[in-house]
Amino acid sequence: MLNIKPFIEKLNGLKFDDMYLNDFLLTWEKTDQEIDALFTVADALRHLRENNVDTSIFESGLAISNFRDNSTRTRFSFSSAANMLGLAVQDLDEGKSQIAHGETVRETANMISFMADVIGIRDDMYIGKGNTYMREVSKSVQEGYDEGVLEQRPTLVNLQCDIDHPTQSMADMLHIIHHFGGVENLKGKKLAMTWAYSPSYGKPLSVPQGIVGLMTRFGMEVTLAHPEGYEIMGDVEAVAAKNAAATGGKFTKTNSMCEAFKGADIVYPKSWAPFAAMEKRTDLYGKGDMDGINALEKELLAQNAKHKDWECTEELMALTNGGKALYMHCLPADITGVSCKEGEVSASVFDRYRVPLYKEAGFKPYIIAAMMMMAKCENPQKVLEMLANKNAQRWMK
Amino acid sequence: MLNIKPFIEKLNGLKFDDMYLNDFLLTWEKTDQEIDALFTVADALRHLRENNVDTSIFESGLAISNFRDNSTRTRFSFSSAANMLGLAVQDLDEGKSQIAHGETVRETANMISFMADVIGIRDDMYIGKGNTYMREVSKSVQEGYDEGVLEQRPTLVNLQCDIDHPTQSMADMLHIIHHFGGVENLKGKKLAMTWAYSPSYGKPLSVPQGIVGLMTRFGMEVTLAHPEGYEIMGDVEAVAAKNAAATGGKFTKTNSMCEAFKGADIVYPKSWAPFAAMEKRTDLYGKGDMDGINALEKELLAQNAKHKDWECTEELMALTNGGKALYMHCLPADITGVSCKEGEVSASVFDRYRVPLYKEAGFKPYIIAAMMMMAKCENPQKVLEMLANKNAQRWMK
Amino acid sequence: MLNIKPFIEKLNGLKFDDMYLNDFLLTWEKTDQEIDALFTVADALRHLRENNVDTSIFESGLAISNFRDNSTRTRFSFSSAANMLGLAVQDLDEGKSQIAHGETVRETANMISFMADVIGIRDDMYIGKGNTYMREVSKSVQEGYDEGVLEQRPTLVNLQCDIDHPTQSMADMLHIIHHFGGVENLKGKKLAMTWAYSPSYGKPLSVPQGIVGLMTRFGMEVTLAHPEGYEIMGDVEAVAAKNAAATGGKFTKTNSMCEAFKGADIVYPKSWAPFAAMEKRTDLYGKGDMDGINALEKELLAQNAKHKDWECTEELMALTNGGKALYMHCLPADITGVSCKEGEVSASVFDRYRVPLYKEAGFKPYIIAAMMMMAKCENPQKVLEMLANKNAQRWMK
Repeated sequence: MLNIKPFIEKLNGLKFDDMYLNDFLLTWEKTDQEIDALFTVADALRHLRENNVDTSIFESGLAISNFRDNSTRTRFSFSSAANMLGLAVQDLDEGKSQIAHGETVRETANMISFMADVIGIRDDMYIGKGNTYMREVSKSVQEGYDEGVLEQRPTLVNLQCDIDHPTQSMADMLHIIHHFGGVENLKGKKLAMTWAYSPSYGKPLSVPQGIVGLMTRFGMEVTLAHPEGYEIMGDVEAVAAKNAAATGGKFTKTNSMCEAFKGADIVYPKSWAPFAAMEKRTDLYGKGDMDGINALEKELLAQNAKHKDWECTEELMALTNGGKALYMHCLPADITGVSCKEGEVSASVFDRYRVPLYKEAGFKPYIIAAMMMMAKCENPQKVLEMLANKNAQRWMK
Repeated sequence: MLNIKPFIEKLNGLKFDDMYLNDFLLTWEKTDQEIDALFTVADALRHLRENNVDTSIFESGLAISNFRDNSTRTRFSFSSAANMLGLAVQDLDEGKSQIAHGETVRETANMISFMADVIGIRDDMYIGKGNTYMREVSKSVQEGYDEGVLEQRPTLVNLQCDIDHPTQSMADMLHIIHHFGGVENLKGKKLAMTWAYSPSYGKPLSVPQGIVGLMTRFGMEVTLAHPEGYEIMGDVEAVAAKNAAATGGKFTKTNSMCEAFKGADIVYPKSWAPFAAMEKRTDLYGKGDMDGINALEKELLAQNAKHKDWECTEELMALTNGGKALYMHCLPADITGVSCKEGEVSASVFDRYRVPLYKEAGFKPYIIAAMMMMAKCENPQKVLEMLANKNAQRWMK
Repeated sequence: MLNIKPFIEKLNGLKFDDMYLNDFLLTWEKTDQEIDALFTVADALRHLRENNVDTSIFESGLAISNFRDNSTRTRFSFSSAANMLGLAVQDLDEGKSQIAHGETVRETANMISFMADVIGIRDDMYIGKGNTYMREVSKSVQEGYDEGVLEQRPTLVNLQCDIDHPTQSMADMLHIIHHFGGVENLKGKKLAMTWAYSPSYGKPLSVPQGIVGLMTRFGMEVTLAHPEGYEIMGDVEAVAAKNAAATGGKFTKTNSMCEAFKGADIVYPKSWAPFAAMEKRTDLYGKGDMDGINALEKELLAQNAKHKDWECTEELMALTNGGKALYMHCLPADITGVSCKEGEVSASVFDRYRVPLYKEAGFKPYIIAAMMMMAKCENPQKVLEMLANKNAQRWMK
């Protein structure tokens, strides 16, 4: 049954006007009320769509995707979100374009944006690069808008950078909220964001960083666990510590997976590369030192191989609260005996949590759509109400 | 003049409710009434579009295309069909995605389908693979839907597999029906599905298989002709024989192109690779034996070259019923002296039939749209009536 | 404030019925009134969009893009224009298609066009090829339409060929018109289309040709300046001379950049390859002589390097009318010290004109949309009025 009122009433109590005509780059740049409002809009959009109500707020307009790293899931989530709101996706494929021929970021950003309402960027490979690039694009289109070059100011959505992966962490958090029946039930819950072994090399740090940077805001006790040498960015650890202090939660670190799992309500075991190594790789890349990069890769794989015991097994899961912690992963996971010989998680644990994991991923299109909508609609409550009142069918069944 | 009633009345007399929320993988999995209804919906959609009536049944939603083999025509037909119904196309480009990195089919199928209404797959290169893959995807999204992961159950459309090419054979059949003025005029008509020489190697068997698997259902006398060694799948021959027996038609085989053409009302001369060779290639491919594959290719080209007399010439056409058989081809054809030195058909025959051949191809977008619509609309009659009554212009001329 | 009337009244006084169901391949094939009407429709569409009025004239339909040379800007302009009118873009990616396998242009043109309303083509690399190819496609779809193969006749838009770049020159001209406050103010204005040095090789001639072929129609004094050996096509020079004679303007040539800049109101300094060299390259390409092509490239770069003094500097700008000529470029420019060591324009000149340059580019989506609309709407006045009266929001802010 369609009932949009609870969402609108919730939004009426929150302050989020600064999100209008703004970007979504890092969760910790947003206030608690803004984060809360975003979850509410995501849920409202889902409620409309599940009731077969058309959610198009655009009759035309482009959503530009710029994937500087491969992606299937995020690509489809972005497409789905754009489509849900009435935007057409146009890929900026830099390989095919003239961008390599000396164009500045500023110029390209403006040239593609004459009719762009949204720009989604994934740029997560090199430390110090991705988020910086996004801010350059953002500044460029803001200038273009201020100077009268652009009729509308395209909104940037960070689809994963070197620092944060906000569409992932926000979708993960919304999954947690629904799983535990509301934010109000999260106080004191224990979440373990832990490293896990993978036979592959150089996975981005943005997932663990995004998780500890966001999950520490809800009064939970968040533990970051990893072997020595697998540190994440210090700046993000500081954010997590500050968040925890502000919300009465905790942020602790350990080098023991076992310790992190003890009594945990939520576990998120996932491989990543060490920050220091990623910094080194960025330097080597900057120098074009391919031999150095290959050597570093071998070294890191050897280092990883020392920590094959960092696997999410049934034994470890048994240590969690009642043995029933919610297992989370951004997918795809390296599943022992399934997608690799030895990996992040045992097949039996993964299989038990397959459906919740899929549902976790299913929040992402709505999170992205909410990011777009809150940046493009000055009064999302009114727009949601109009959509509900219009009650146009998405699909003539 | 817009008149949707005849189509609706026809549909009212047919039973096809099992098509709703189902896939279209093989024509012989569908009942005669379902096939008939699908042709009717295709014709109705064409009638609406020709009268400039908007046929969008979706306000938003994705149609995913997954082309595991190259395609221009089918790609555009799929895009056209999706667009006609209001869906946006999102390509799943496995080269660019993380699918090669150990993801399971099940996971990917769900991850891309959160807002997908249709998935079209082409996978026709290896015997025993394509149709199997489609069924894995179908099972995966059905599970996802049943488990509450997916809000809607995406429909699969087979855009060509190792066994059948239903969008082709259905479009071809609708062309025949229109050419002869109705299904009722097909009883006893002679159709020759014959092999023809091509200088290229390894064309899929799905076209001849699709043709004999479908065309034998309308009381026609279908002959399959090919040189020795160019057998198609035995299972499909069995389907054809059973179909013919059930509808008072005939299914015969011969190794003489000449014999097949004698008195034929319809001829479909087209190259394909021998089933046994394709099976061998699949094995070699499975073993990664590239030398073996290259050797097989040479062998097959040499074998083909022995049958250069299997060309659709004016002399052969003169043997057909009144010398006026309908020449058919799925295109592109290997035209002697045009696209190759020696090929499937002489230039003069091809040229005389160029316009009908193009029209034959023109049915495909409507066939695909009808496949989508019948899987997504519980009551297509009602939806067609609503579209006609609404009478929204597709194009403000 | 929305006021569509002035545009409609202007259009009512112009004759442009021959544009309906026609193509846009060369500006000099269009009458003055047609050119004027196209600018008016472009401005009207912009007026609607700036007032947040939905400009969709299609509920469904495809706009096919066929980029045979790389492009970012034109690709996005085409996508934007298609999207603004309600069309979905489908790329014809010939690399991925079967076109390389011996298909004729005619066949492919029809096969992809069953539901295509527009086809945009960029093919600018080889002299004598691009425009010829476009005309083949145009003839093919016209035939297909006449023969009943196609339900609608797709319109061709030239997105740059070997002869002209009409979407660029028309956007540039509309920029000039707005900059000088109307066509009526252009009489006697001096425009310098001059060659400029670039460290890159073989830039198409279509921009300078398009500019002198169009800008000579408005009573301006157009000078074409280039070093000896950098001649453009003689046919286009003849067009420019004829245009100038007919409109009381002038078309002169010089081998001095300095002379061209003296007293100029508008300057357009831009690199291009010599026509004779491009002809030679086309021959070499036809013979597959890669060594010859490489040798020619070296030769041309050496030839270019003799003319490094052809740079748009502050000194040269000071020679223009009041030192305040409008600097124009199709972008991306080779900027000295920014995108290259020595290039077409000094950084300080470029920087002063950055915003106008970006605005110049911003006319292109509207020009392309107007080309589409005038070919697809028999009575654009009526359609514009309907859009304004309907006043549907493009974007629910």
